[in-house]
Amino acid sequence: MGTASGDDDRHVMHQGGGVNLSARRPFSEALRSGLAETFFPDDPFRGFGALPPKERAWGALKYFVPALEWVPQYGIDKFKFDLLAGITIASLAIPQGISYARLANLPPIIGLYSSFVPPLLYAVFGSSNNLAVGTVAAASLLLASIIEDEVSPEDNPELYLHLFYTAAFFTGIFQTALGVFRLGLIVDFLSRSTITGFMGGTAMIIIMQQLKGLLGMKHFTSKTDLISVVGSIFKYRHEWRWQSAILGVCFILFLFSSKHLKKKMPHLFWVSAIAPFMVVVIGGVFDFLVHGDEHGIPIVGDLKKGINPISISQLRFNGKHVGVVVKAGLLSGILALAEGIAVGRSLAMIKNEQIDGNKEMIAFGMMNIVGSFTSCYLTTGPFSKSAVNFDAGGKTPMSNVVMSVCILLVLLFLAPLFKYTPLVALSSIIVVAMIGLIKVKEFIRLYRVDKFDFCICMVAFVGVVFFTMVIGLSASVGLSVLRALLYVARPATVKLGNITGTEVFRDVKQYPHAKSVPNILVLQLGSPIYFVNAGYLRERILRWVEDEEHICKGHGQDLQCLVLDLGGVTSIDNTGIGMLGEVHKGLDRKGIMIALANPRLQVTEKLVVSGYIKDTIGEESVFLTITDAIASCRYGLRRFRGKEGCSEV
Amino acid sequence: MGTASGDDDRHVMHQGGGVNLSARRPFSEALRSGLAETFFPDDPFRGFGALPPKERAWGALKYFVPALEWVPQYGIDKFKFDLLAGITIASLAIPQGISYARLANLPPIIGLYSSFVPPLLYAVFGSSNNLAVGTVAAASLLLASIIEDEVSPEDNPELYLHLFYTAAFFTGIFQTALGVFRLGLIVDFLSRSTITGFMGGTAMIIIMQQLKGLLGMKHFTSKTDLISVVGSIFKYRHEWRWQSAILGVCFILFLFSSKHLKKKMPHLFWVSAIAPFMVVVIGGVFDFLVHGDEHGIPIVGDLKKGINPISISQLRFNGKHVGVVVKAGLLSGILALAEGIAVGRSLAMIKNEQIDGNKEMIAFGMMNIVGSFTSCYLTTGPFSKSAVNFDAGGKTPMSNVVMSVCILLVLLFLAPLFKYTPLVALSSIIVVAMIGLIKVKEFIRLYRVDKFDFCICMVAFVGVVFFTMVIGLSASVGLSVLRALLYVARPATVKLGNITGTEVFRDVKQYPHAKSVPNILVLQLGSPIYFVNAGYLRERILRWVEDEEHICKGHGQDLQCLVLDLGGVTSIDNTGIGMLGEVHKGLDRKGIMIALANPRLQVTEKLVVSGYIKDTIGEESVFLTITDAIASCRYGLRRFRGKEGCSEV
Repeated sequence: MGTASGDDDRHVMHQGGGVNLSARRPFSEALRSGLAETFFPDDPFRGFGALPPKERAWGALKYFVPALEWVPQYGIDKFKFDLLAGITIASLAIPQGISYARLANLPPIIGLYSSFVPPLLYAVFGSSNNLAVGTVAAASLLLASIIEDEVSPEDNPELYLHLFYTAAFFTGIFQTALGVFRLGLIVDFLSRSTITGFMGGTAMIIIMQQLKGLLGMKHFTSKTDLISVVGSIFKYRHEWRWQSAILGVCFILFLFSSKHLKKKMPHLFWVSAIAPFMVVVIGGVFDFLVHGDEHGIPIVGDLKKGINPISISQLRFNGKHVGVVVKAGLLSGILALAEGIAVGRSLAMIKNEQIDGNKEMIAFGMMNIVGSFTSCYLTTGPFSKSAVNFDAGGKTPMSNVVMSVCILLVLLFLAPLFKYTPLVALSSIIVVAMIGLIKVKEFIRLYRVDKFDFCICMVAFVGVVFFTMVIGLSASVGLSVLRALLYVARPATVKLGNITGTEVFRDVKQYPHAKSVPNILVLQLGSPIYFVNAGYLRERILRWVEDEEHICKGHGQDLQCLVLDLGGVTSIDNTGIGMLGEVHKGLDRKGIMIALANPRLQVTEKLVVSGYIKDTIGEESVFLTITDAIASCRYGLRRFRGKEGCSEV
Repeated sequence: MGTASGDDDRHVMHQGGGVNLSARRPFSEALRSGLAETFFPDDPFRGFGALPPKERAWGALKYFVPALEWVPQYGIDKFKFDLLAGITIASLAIPQGISYARLANLPPIIGLYSSFVPPLLYAVFGSSNNLAVGTVAAASLLLASIIEDEVSPEDNPELYLHLFYTAAFFTGIFQTALGVFRLGLIVDFLSRSTITGFMGGTAMIIIMQQLKGLLGMKHFTSKTDLISVVGSIFKYRHEWRWQSAILGVCFILFLFSSKHLKKKMPHLFWVSAIAPFMVVVIGGVFDFLVHGDEHGIPIVGDLKKGINPISISQLRFNGKHVGVVVKAGLLSGILALAEGIAVGRSLAMIKNEQIDGNKEMIAFGMMNIVGSFTSCYLTTGPFSKSAVNFDAGGKTPMSNVVMSVCILLVLLFLAPLFKYTPLVALSSIIVVAMIGLIKVKEFIRLYRVDKFDFCICMVAFVGVVFFTMVIGLSASVGLSVLRALLYVARPATVKLGNITGTEVFRDVKQYPHAKSVPNILVLQLGSPIYFVNAGYLRERILRWVEDEEHICKGHGQDLQCLVLDLGGVTSIDNTGIGMLGEVHKGLDRKGIMIALANPRLQVTEKLVVSGYIKDTIGEESVFLTITDAIASCRYGLRRFRGKEGCSEV
């Protein structure tokens, strides 16, 4: 801030106040850099330019098939870890697969199928070393709640199942397309607050629904809102079975204590990891021995031996259900992406690895497309399984392959044994998994830090609990987008004052010792200036000026100059430039000069091209710093007074 | 930037680097100021606090009924001007009213009715001294195109008319509600580019449609797209009448030369203002004399004497059409508001007056509600009429009253005379009015200044011309909103360098002579940081760091510190704070320190409350200026090296 002292004002003014007005990128470069920042923020191919064509092709192939990256360096040292991790997650995949399939009112075997094929695909296309693939509770319930509106799983189980395959197909196409067209930013619209609230609400509903299994009931509502669920529990209270309830309480206590153990002794994580499998095995043996099925402890029922049948021919693209299926596929797809990518990112961060959101989307998409051909429904990277994989020391996606092989063996040889799994065991596993998702502490933290975020979170929670999952999710996202628009519709403008003894200008509200400059109003604008906020900014700037005129009059002086600090303005559009022109006109009539300080590159470009700088305010009114602008304002005032006096105001 | 020299680093670090971390507003104040900025950016009641209750009540009443403001000071000196202006706009209101009613396929008399009641209401509630009230072409056509889809004006003219009244009623309710709830910002979503394109496209379609009248045709399509319109002209080419065409060309030439005259000799503006009325009178007399109706020059037909009949009982709220009517009402209402407010604002700006967008909305709403009760359809402040009012020297809304009285006299005594108005005269008037709305120069300017704005404009234009008006409008608004979201989803981050010999830091791309600081990366963030862009910013910051590490390694050095200039960040949300935490974690692992420079008030508040400053980066890492941050980084590095060396990277 020392380029301009009083002596070389004239020099400065001829140069456009030191601002590089000629720095202008050709359109092609501006467009290229704009597109690159929008769609390729990670710049995947940087550093490729220098390589010979063959290596470049190999690099590109490796980019799309990350397995080529890690397989050549794979050895027994890593396999040890992956083997252990793979077996551990397989033991979790069996009960979870069966449970979540039941949550979606699908045959339990579908849950096992879904833990066989998709993990293999993820191992090839996935970029995360920590993610374990499987079905997820929230998306299962969401799919069920949408598809049940159209087809009843009791009346037409076959069509119902086929619609799930079709939905998974659409999910896959959608996810792949998002990845290929690099539109990962859609996932960004599910904010942390939305996900916290949505997950909490879903967990709450799922827990309430498990009372069906825990109480051994046979009839239940297909609706997901709290009132229907609770009503349903009491409506069929004659179906309550105490045997089932007692067993359920025991299982839940066991699972909780295993979790507690993990917290106290982290190296015993595997106890909590295999606890669900233990529950299934113990429950199955117990039920087999006491013939529980006949004594109020319903069981899963027949599971067919054999691997996934091909289901391509069962996809339903024609007919009247396609609209609902597309909706179900897209919504659950976004949800699954949000969970999978968030999980992958947070685990990668702990190990200081990088994952690529767009690659992940393609990997998820591939596994859902192929999954829909092989009797699987929606899969992603669930938090619980991935965390276990991470804790168990999985090093590469190979752990998914190990899990897949384990499930293959189960499907080929052991599936019929799981027939005796009591439903109450599955319900207990779900309840314990879900309780951790109701993050009361996070709700409280949100309330303390940001009331609006808290609202967004609560809208999702309340919407899911009392209405439907789709309503909760879309209301919360809608509120988030509204907030995003409001942020830019009402950008903060602050009055700056000089911090005594320095050349620093800061917000006078934030730093009460910052002193306003006499006769000059310095305003800092922030965020892009464009059609959404141009009208507001015009009114607001004119109001600042009026207020300042009032203050100046109180001291018997006139406001003579307005300095706009544009350092925080990242871009400006046609409407925004028009607004600046109108402000200039309005002030000109009052005899107040206007000066711009520190416009950024994109803004300077636009202001120059539009003729605003040359034709409206003049190159001599653009400055590198606020200090320069003020010095020049004073100089201009002296000149102005000398010529015509200062009577116009 | 002089608070911290090397000597008092320790002092600075204890204070949080001079940033006022304790400046925190209580929640109530933060909420109040947030709401006030969002909904009351004009702060209507400021300066009221000091007044006694009675005056305050009077002030509030005056706020809601602006007529109370100007009527007491009204005198004959102003009335002279208003009388002249009122008569001039009345002469324009008659042909325009009849023309636009015909454009909407309504009985011509409705156009006159609509120029009688609404202007009286505007005179009471309106805040602009320049606006002249009347019907508008674009909104008339839009209403017709939506309502015609539901009810044919030929088959069921009565129902068709009643739906127009009902749409006007909904428009009025909607506009009033927007004004009362101060949601004027909805209008901001119609950007200048959208309006330019939409108006241009609509003008083009309207001009093409006038070929029906100019050629004296009887049959025509009810669709508005170019292909249907042109197809229709040729399909019924046996209906073409040369008599009508010749008369049309004469009228158009006359109207154009009157406009040209105004441009050359601005004081003869009244010639162009009354030219349309002249065309109607001359055409009527001519048609009467030559019995044009029988010789291929169709006429308007019977116009009933008498003032507006009451139409409350004709509003249709029940039945199946209500959805379409609401849609028509809302869309045309927004469009009418956008035109009316933009016109009011630009005229007010020339005279250096202020108009209040929210008050205007209430005024428009009132006139449409009452209008719908008195056989009027949608009215607003059209550009053409208002500009004539302005040119004719209208001083207050009284000119609307004068116009209203003139129309009253016409309705009572002269209406039947307008029976002989040839349709070709009305078509000529519309064509000439519309040609000015196709702003080719503005299209070219947009293309030069901002390609994206040009796209938004062209989407509106092409959408209107080749599809429907609703498609054109919504696609263009959708694209604008997408752009708004992209702006905030991909905020610019720039690397700053020091301008030699100063303490100023600027974008190294914009100012190539700005020098990077050795071992330290200074990044400037802009715009709010929140869920939409948090993911992007994390990736982008980490990529900047990687690139910088690469550069540093090239010089045999390590990157040791990242300084984030938050001066341009206007706000931050929960997801954004989480992102900063993740960046901190990632850099911590690489041994790179992080420092924040110049956070704004709202951001500082959030960072403090969330515990980010205290628990994550520490108060000693927040600085008032970049210079302080760099000085402290160097100091920290010295200390750090002294203790443990710098080997971690």
